[in-house]
Amino acid sequence: MAKIPVAVLGATGMVGQRFVQLLADHPWFSLEALTASERSAGKPYAEAAKWYLHPPMPEHVKDMEVLPTSGESVEDAEVVFSALPADVAREVEPALAEAGHVVASNASALRMEEDVPLVIPEVNPEHLRLIEVQRDRRGWDGCVVTNPNCTTIIFVLALKPILDSFGVRRVLVATMQAISGAGYGGVPSMTIQDNVIPFIAKEEEKSQTEPLKILGRLEGDEVRPAQIKISASCHRVPVLDGHTVAAFVELEREAEVGDVANVLRRFRGKPQELELPTAPERPIIVEEGQDRPQPRFARWAGSVPGMSVVVGRIRRDQALENGIKFLVSGNNAIRGAAGASVLNAELMKAENLL
Amino acid sequence: MAKIPVAVLGATGMVGQRFVQLLADHPWFSLEALTASERSAGKPYAEAAKWYLHPPMPEHVKDMEVLPTSGESVEDAEVVFSALPADVAREVEPALAEAGHVVASNASALRMEEDVPLVIPEVNPEHLRLIEVQRDRRGWDGCVVTNPNCTTIIFVLALKPILDSFGVRRVLVATMQAISGAGYGGVPSMTIQDNVIPFIAKEEEKSQTEPLKILGRLEGDEVRPAQIKISASCHRVPVLDGHTVAAFVELEREAEVGDVANVLRRFRGKPQELELPTAPERPIIVEEGQDRPQPRFARWAGSVPGMSVVVGRIRRDQALENGIKFLVSGNNAIRGAAGASVLNAELMKAENLL
Amino acid sequence: MAKIPVAVLGATGMVGQRFVQLLADHPWFSLEALTASERSAGKPYAEAAKWYLHPPMPEHVKDMEVLPTSGESVEDAEVVFSALPADVAREVEPALAEAGHVVASNASALRMEEDVPLVIPEVNPEHLRLIEVQRDRRGWDGCVVTNPNCTTIIFVLALKPILDSFGVRRVLVATMQAISGAGYGGVPSMTIQDNVIPFIAKEEEKSQTEPLKILGRLEGDEVRPAQIKISASCHRVPVLDGHTVAAFVELEREAEVGDVANVLRRFRGKPQELELPTAPERPIIVEEGQDRPQPRFARWAGSVPGMSVVVGRIRRDQALENGIKFLVSGNNAIRGAAGASVLNAELMKAENLL
Amino acid sequence: MAKIPVAVLGATGMVGQRFVQLLADHPWFSLEALTASERSAGKPYAEAAKWYLHPPMPEHVKDMEVLPTSGESVEDAEVVFSALPADVAREVEPALAEAGHVVASNASALRMEEDVPLVIPEVNPEHLRLIEVQRDRRGWDGCVVTNPNCTTIIFVLALKPILDSFGVRRVLVATMQAISGAGYGGVPSMTIQDNVIPFIAKEEEKSQTEPLKILGRLEGDEVRPAQIKISASCHRVPVLDGHTVAAFVELEREAEVGDVANVLRRFRGKPQELELPTAPERPIIVEEGQDRPQPRFARWAGSVPGMSVVVGRIRRDQALENGIKFLVSGNNAIRGAAGASVLNAELMKAENLL
Repeated sequence: MAKIPVAVLGATGMVGQRFVQLLADHPWFSLEALTASERSAGKPYAEAAKWYLHPPMPEHVKDMEVLPTSGESVEDAEVVFSALPADVAREVEPALAEAGHVVASNASALRMEEDVPLVIPEVNPEHLRLIEVQRDRRGWDGCVVTNPNCTTIIFVLALKPILDSFGVRRVLVATMQAISGAGYGGVPSMTIQDNVIPFIAKEEEKSQTEPLKILGRLEGDEVRPAQIKISASCHRVPVLDGHTVAAFVELEREAEVGDVANVLRRFRGKPQELELPTAPERPIIVEEGQDRPQPRFARWAGSVPGMSVVVGRIRRDQALENGIKFLVSGNNAIRGAAGASVLNAELMKAENLL
Repeated sequence: MAKIPVAVLGATGMVGQRFVQLLADHPWFSLEALTASERSAGKPYAEAAKWYLHPPMPEHVKDMEVLPTSGESVEDAEVVFSALPADVAREVEPALAEAGHVVASNASALRMEEDVPLVIPEVNPEHLRLIEVQRDRRGWDGCVVTNPNCTTIIFVLALKPILDSFGVRRVLVATMQAISGAGYGGVPSMTIQDNVIPFIAKEEEKSQTEPLKILGRLEGDEVRPAQIKISASCHRVPVLDGHTVAAFVELEREAEVGDVANVLRRFRGKPQELELPTAPERPIIVEEGQDRPQPRFARWAGSVPGMSVVVGRIRRDQALENGIKFLVSGNNAIRGAAGASVLNAELMKAENLL
Repeated sequence: MAKIPVAVLGATGMVGQRFVQLLADHPWFSLEALTASERSAGKPYAEAAKWYLHPPMPEHVKDMEVLPTSGESVEDAEVVFSALPADVAREVEPALAEAGHVVASNASALRMEEDVPLVIPEVNPEHLRLIEVQRDRRGWDGCVVTNPNCTTIIFVLALKPILDSFGVRRVLVATMQAISGAGYGGVPSMTIQDNVIPFIAKEEEKSQTEPLKILGRLEGDEVRPAQIKISASCHRVPVLDGHTVAAFVELEREAEVGDVANVLRRFRGKPQELELPTAPERPIIVEEGQDRPQPRFARWAGSVPGMSVVVGRIRRDQALENGIKFLVSGNNAIRGAAGASVLNAELMKAENLL
Repeated sequence: MAKIPVAVLGATGMVGQRFVQLLADHPWFSLEALTASERSAGKPYAEAAKWYLHPPMPEHVKDMEVLPTSGESVEDAEVVFSALPADVAREVEPALAEAGHVVASNASALRMEEDVPLVIPEVNPEHLRLIEVQRDRRGWDGCVVTNPNCTTIIFVLALKPILDSFGVRRVLVATMQAISGAGYGGVPSMTIQDNVIPFIAKEEEKSQTEPLKILGRLEGDEVRPAQIKISASCHRVPVLDGHTVAAFVELEREAEVGDVANVLRRFRGKPQELELPTAPERPIIVEEGQDRPQPRFARWAGSVPGMSVVVGRIRRDQALENGIKFLVSGNNAIRGAAGASVLNAELMKAENLL
């Protein structure tokens, strides 16, 4: 099988680099173009991107010329992965979809558009049917498919099997988020060292809104939002990678802690069934240690490192009816961003949507 | 006025050092004895205590001989401040109370005993009347008065004016706690660096139980626990000093965010009224900045540094009825421990209970 | 005595804020004007400056209007303290000196100019005589007086008494520098967390060049550079404030460790003799603990907090002839920057040079 | 080829875990026994060892019973890897060697014994001939072979090719060492957070003494120490893994920076020639970036992760004759400890010394 040509938009930033890392050696996709802002355009990738990751930059991308972010630059790419800032994405992504590309986007710009699928492949793969609606309405040959913001992905993955088995009425989450979530230069060391910053712009809004769409039911041409009350309080802590979420959940039906652990442990989704290349064997790993999960370890969890989330400390919550509480931690840049888009594209390929 | 002779039990540890710092130059109390475990006994304090604090160890305590923790060692002390571990406190504190001392204890051992006051001076000063009950029942000449654990103090201070003005039905708190709360050697750097540890032994139990007693009503000889549902999820983050708490609160009556801010801002208690030496002018400081409070600054908040807590980001909570949420941060070792005991003792003095 | 009106140029940055902190309540100087870049001009200081320091911003500067950096803005200031970036300083400072102001500058722009004094008041107060030379040559009514870069000040202070007592042939220093040295936004947290950055732009050049001028001898109208070989290797570590320097020193004459400790301990300079307001009682504090100095404590050392440097671990060096080695740590933003300029100005006042 | 049965002494600590990680899947060695102190003996490894590393504990060692550290426990092991504390090693290692085992030890106890090889396989493989001397003198069937302490290995690796090409007269090193070097519980977070600790017990002595033996010449039955003057100043910084060393070197002959880079870059040793399983392709990686090496990346350097050291910032040193200075960083727990012992054993196997 010939590989599918793909491109990465915004390839020099932190999420862009994760895309490059995940795609450099991908069994289905062939990385053909890297774009960035004008400032970087024309340079070889090795020079344009200050590489932040371990392992080092893949050899064969070092000499790829970074192109300006434009339709022309990605002309030959069937799938375009987007790590663009929201304001740029809002212009560029629709244009590319109109030009026939499948845009797998990590940007927030179009996530909440009615006809744009907002997908976690293990949670709501059926929402991809919105692509048809989108094409019909907009007259596009291509399409835009989005994944949620990092925090949302991490706790909604853990919420899904609980919702399916016991029903969920309310969710309150308090987050302890990694600095990488703000981009490389996003958080000065003078700000966060020996400190907590109890605010992340727009994060609470996204974490309260996106889950309702993801967990909503597709009825005809639209998604009916889930009837769950969600509240988020989002905080930055001095951790490089790995968002940790303390969740308090009011269930519809009483559940034993052991039963909750079991449904989480047994949870598998479409990506596991289809054995997608970037799908971890177990999307949710339940750890027993009383001091788990910890982001320094959870950030690499899973058979595909960084693609599983780790749940721990499941216990009764005495402030909510049928309350349980737990912790969940996962890699914000992989499962929470670049890996999420790649998994979306893999799902589309496997479902013959490419 | 002659100063009241006092002693510190467990004077070499972190809380012990904070006691020494607060008492070295106290206008009402004169520091006469320092005790520690056998290992340290007999040494000058400067040698026995590895001083962790800024500013440096007060000059005049350097040569004080550290005594073994025993009744004899503190014979001449009217008030004995206790920074003992719970298991030691359980033996030593009753014996000292029986021997006629007023024990102002930060230890958890006796906090939940029915006839032992568990007091935050701004919140429930009237509970000191339990001293009479305690003396009657136990036939003691002295007494034991306790303060809550650090996390409890910090969020209950913020809860009190809200409770008084709007009523409180449920409280869910997620904490981001400093490493100093575990004692100097309590958290290895290999554990917490670049990490979050989502577990602190016994902390959630204490944070769920103690507030009900503190906020309870004294009826006759006993405290009727408050009828509030409380759930805590407690986590350690890489911060030296200062616990930060994200609180989600269900009020009995709807309240505007501005009104909540106002009742917090205006809150004053007995210690302010009595102008106790260790009482900050404002027990609660409300900060407006959208990224506040931050523990690196909140740890020194107040006209008596470390004795005020800082509240910020008061906003609606959409998952709870009449819900509000906010952050509160404060110094776990001062307002949350040594300063709490000292303020208790000052209140007793002012109320003629010494 | 009427206070001398002064201004701070570049008042919103980290060093600027330290200037404001040190001058807000100064016994000799009255803070009359604060300048910053165009972007901040016109705003009240409380709005223009995101305050990074503890304690909080002094009340009476909150409403001061930030002015653009220009001659007009500081017209009434006799002394102008400069926390300008080097390139701006190179334009602005000479113009202000020409206009009659005394410019006490922390900027690097003019430090190495032949007729500009580069002064640490305890080390080379006599170099202030260059002011005359400067005025003669340039025809200025005012003058520019500079202090060295932060690293240089910290280790040269410790070097001076050793040089005077035993002679110094070579010095090799390896530094572990705080992130605040790069300004508030200078070091992204993604760069330095759990890491060491073994490079600081221009720092090694400055640390190798400036000491030769400071320790040089004033002969007639010029400074003859000291005949010492200096090599620096400069590194950034995850510390908020406080630069720590490991120094290896080849002496001209053999010296016992105890004798070196003694000359350091006994060292006093002009500022101590004149009892300048910002002069610490002891410019150098020698600590005995085998694990001292530590920047978390050394940053506040001295009777004027942050104005003393702390030396520890003085020991023989076996790789150099008459070799000794030691550690020295001090506050880069106070003794190493704003405090240095203020002390220079105080010295000038005391010497009737204002 | 049947695998050689091996054991790990002190298998539950940090270095022990690195041994387990490196040996769990080794092509030549088969991990047959794990020992620890009495406290852990009898437990399955998964329970006895709190696993600190990524990736998680290898599945097949989880159920291995931890044995007490004794001759009986390792009876069947041909090679015994030792991660014992020095005082225990001093008793146990000779006894095991006498009983016929080859002890590949990371402990410091016997390193400086005249007839005990202290080996970095790329640097002084010929010193293994001391085994004969050792056996003759002591009448042992087995032997003890040691590797240097972590800091020494890292800078001596970089020194060796420089010594061979240009000669070395003096070396001054200032280190910035990771917390893992002190063992899991060795450095409390209260000590090192936001701080530098400028002292590591015995580290300077080891770093000044061990290199002279390693770089010494084997003449007849003994090693003539190298004639180099070495001085070390050792400091702990808040970094999890990876020691970084700033080295100032006085060469015998003048050398261009480019030439020094070249000899480092081209350096290969016996392990590379023999293609030993744990040998990285390049023992020294020279990085060009002006802000390199950084421990957060250097800790995983090499084709066998953690087995290469990274050198950067090679430049002239103006304080020493023919002076150069550079930075070198490497993984203290892998190349600096467990990997060093494993590589020693592999070399012995390849040289038919097992």
